[in-house]
Amino acid sequence: MAQLNDNYLKLKAGYLFPEIARRVKAFCDQNPVAARRVIRCGIGDVTEPLPAACLKALHAAVDEMGDRATFRGYGPEQGYDFLRAAIAQNEYRDRGIEVADDEIFISDGSKCDCGNILDIFGQENAIGIPDPVYPVYVDTNVMAGHTGAAEETGAYQGLEYLPCTPANGFVPEPPAKKLDLIYLCSPNNPTGAVASRPQLQAWVDYAIKHRAIILFDAAYEAYITDPAIPHSIYEIPGARECAIEFRSFSKHGGFTGVRCAFTVMPKTLLAADGRGRYQPLHPLWNRRMCTKFNGVSYIVQRAAEALYSPEGKQQVRALIEHYLGNARVLMAGTQAAGLQVYGGVNAPYLWVRTPAGVTSWQAFDKILGEVQVVITPGSGFGAQGEGYFRISAFNSRANAEEVARRLPQLQWSQSLWG
Amino acid sequence: MAQLNDNYLKLKAGYLFPEIARRVKAFCDQNPVAARRVIRCGIGDVTEPLPAACLKALHAAVDEMGDRATFRGYGPEQGYDFLRAAIAQNEYRDRGIEVADDEIFISDGSKCDCGNILDIFGQENAIGIPDPVYPVYVDTNVMAGHTGAAEETGAYQGLEYLPCTPANGFVPEPPAKKLDLIYLCSPNNPTGAVASRPQLQAWVDYAIKHRAIILFDAAYEAYITDPAIPHSIYEIPGARECAIEFRSFSKHGGFTGVRCAFTVMPKTLLAADGRGRYQPLHPLWNRRMCTKFNGVSYIVQRAAEALYSPEGKQQVRALIEHYLGNARVLMAGTQAAGLQVYGGVNAPYLWVRTPAGVTSWQAFDKILGEVQVVITPGSGFGAQGEGYFRISAFNSRANAEEVARRLPQLQWSQSLWG
Repeated sequence: MAQLNDNYLKLKAGYLFPEIARRVKAFCDQNPVAARRVIRCGIGDVTEPLPAACLKALHAAVDEMGDRATFRGYGPEQGYDFLRAAIAQNEYRDRGIEVADDEIFISDGSKCDCGNILDIFGQENAIGIPDPVYPVYVDTNVMAGHTGAAEETGAYQGLEYLPCTPANGFVPEPPAKKLDLIYLCSPNNPTGAVASRPQLQAWVDYAIKHRAIILFDAAYEAYITDPAIPHSIYEIPGARECAIEFRSFSKHGGFTGVRCAFTVMPKTLLAADGRGRYQPLHPLWNRRMCTKFNGVSYIVQRAAEALYSPEGKQQVRALIEHYLGNARVLMAGTQAAGLQVYGGVNAPYLWVRTPAGVTSWQAFDKILGEVQVVITPGSGFGAQGEGYFRISAFNSRANAEEVARRLPQLQWSQSLWG
Repeated sequence: MAQLNDNYLKLKAGYLFPEIARRVKAFCDQNPVAARRVIRCGIGDVTEPLPAACLKALHAAVDEMGDRATFRGYGPEQGYDFLRAAIAQNEYRDRGIEVADDEIFISDGSKCDCGNILDIFGQENAIGIPDPVYPVYVDTNVMAGHTGAAEETGAYQGLEYLPCTPANGFVPEPPAKKLDLIYLCSPNNPTGAVASRPQLQAWVDYAIKHRAIILFDAAYEAYITDPAIPHSIYEIPGARECAIEFRSFSKHGGFTGVRCAFTVMPKTLLAADGRGRYQPLHPLWNRRMCTKFNGVSYIVQRAAEALYSPEGKQQVRALIEHYLGNARVLMAGTQAAGLQVYGGVNAPYLWVRTPAGVTSWQAFDKILGEVQVVITPGSGFGAQGEGYFRISAFNSRANAEEVARRLPQLQWSQSLWG
């Protein structure tokens, strides 16, 4: 009698984005005329074409695959040397950060890496997760059996939630309690907040003191505009002893449909085995990737490499500027609508407070119904996200401007009592 | 104090293919002249360029990604409908097999799927694994904590090994013992054997009787030449109630460096939860893919779709014929060398008996040293693989012919005593 993984049955049925899609579809079906006006600022998906340097590299790599002399079969599971070296040099060593080529592991997505990383850790770790947060951190821990059941609030027993509120600038402080694995995300999805150097230093100090590991998600690093904000956790002294960093080309090079990301696994990272002896994690991650993964498509790796060419860098910069320009437009519109807004300066997301008494999903329905804009309800990211919604700046400029014009048309008080 | 996954420490250090690479490098370093003669028939990697239909589809898809109007961001985690439908129609329904489009899950590799599938199963299943076998089945079970330590022989405590020998035609029979999860691979890697309809029916009957699940790896299905051999486990009545099928474009369309595969997860498959209630596995796999995966690159999915175009089918057929032609050439050469050989008719692998008293690794060293051909030692696939080696037919015709000329030059008895 085959047995299934019971932990999956603890997962809440309604995943955030499918529920959004369901409500948008229902609205459009009932309002075919208004449906044509719908602008999506919900899911954080890029909208602009790939940089020209990538397109050129992709075509060239496809041609290589059509010629026996240059055809590539299985590549290294960890990624091709040309890409590992380009990343280590451009993202780290050129910025004075010590990272070796073979500490870079190329993957097909940060979502995958954030989930798969749990493979190499034991079952007894105390896990700290910010709230609100990207749902994948929580759900993959549930699936791995690291939690109890979901409570009424949606929170899972056995996880330590780290509240992110206006009071702490949406960056959690290290708790008094001892944790073993801590997720941090900066620039943050969904709040758009960034962790300062002192805030990150406090976490690194905490992790070293408790021999904990920080899982640092920097998928939105390219959106940092403030020169004081660290782009990598490894800018913080001691981080090579306590942090794994996740990066992605999704929001950086517009690769959400192309699929390429990477994890930085310093060889200096240790964790305890069952007998309390400290052992390096790098060989475990290497073995995990060699056994359960077969590398990223060669042509995709060539496209990622092209992002580091002089033209590629310029084109990436233009892409980021475009989305950050949208964020400024949306920020002005949201403020003109009289709403309190956070984020949007070092991140492509705006985190907006709903008017008093309005829940996240009420705001979702109202904004869709009245001005045909799709946002993401904050409560979908955790209990502390209730009373907020996220606006994504991934869009055309024309759409961003139109959303900025429409938001001030919302009649909050009227509909609350209507 | 972060704890690592102790199960990883049970894994044997020397993974097969890195050890082969190490020995080949050592030989070449010591014998620079002979090194130029080395022909690799070790790892099962394709050598011929991608079918023209794929190249055309790849270029077209890259162009789409360069235009805002046709650009694609995140796709469905399960795969695009166009590819799921093409697979379900061409691989299954056109052959009279009932498989729905949404039972097809597109992935970036069968290796990944074979490992990831364990995510949705519990910890208490009794697991049956053929011996010899593709090492990933064993290693992923070790990593998931489904085994004890490795014994002297390399076998892991807690796994039920199913011996594949000349006596059973290298296809294991269902055991008397009750198993919950059973791996089967046909056409087989490494033996090249295929399971007949009665053999598969016996396994399906066994699985239904014991409410077990068969994990059926059919990555080499395209190499079947015998019209009596099933291409899919779903040709067997009852299989939709007890089997998950893994397929790949790696050996079919030459996609080892392109990365695309799929899993068939029938909605009729059930497994027991902790309270003994039967629940469908399809929603669990769907949730797994949505949470820990972000879909295969759009351009790659278009390339896979092109394999089902009329030209694509013809080009795939030519590719398979090429490798099977190599297998015939290698078969003749191996037989001319006086060696007993199996497989190679419905599979791109030849499974060769070493002369009496010669171990797999001794044969490896001898064949490399004397005739500069790289094979794969059978013992790397399990205890029952000792005394065999695998020859891969993935090569140019010229190389296959040269290998066939060289093998009869081996002086077995002399070197055994020399």
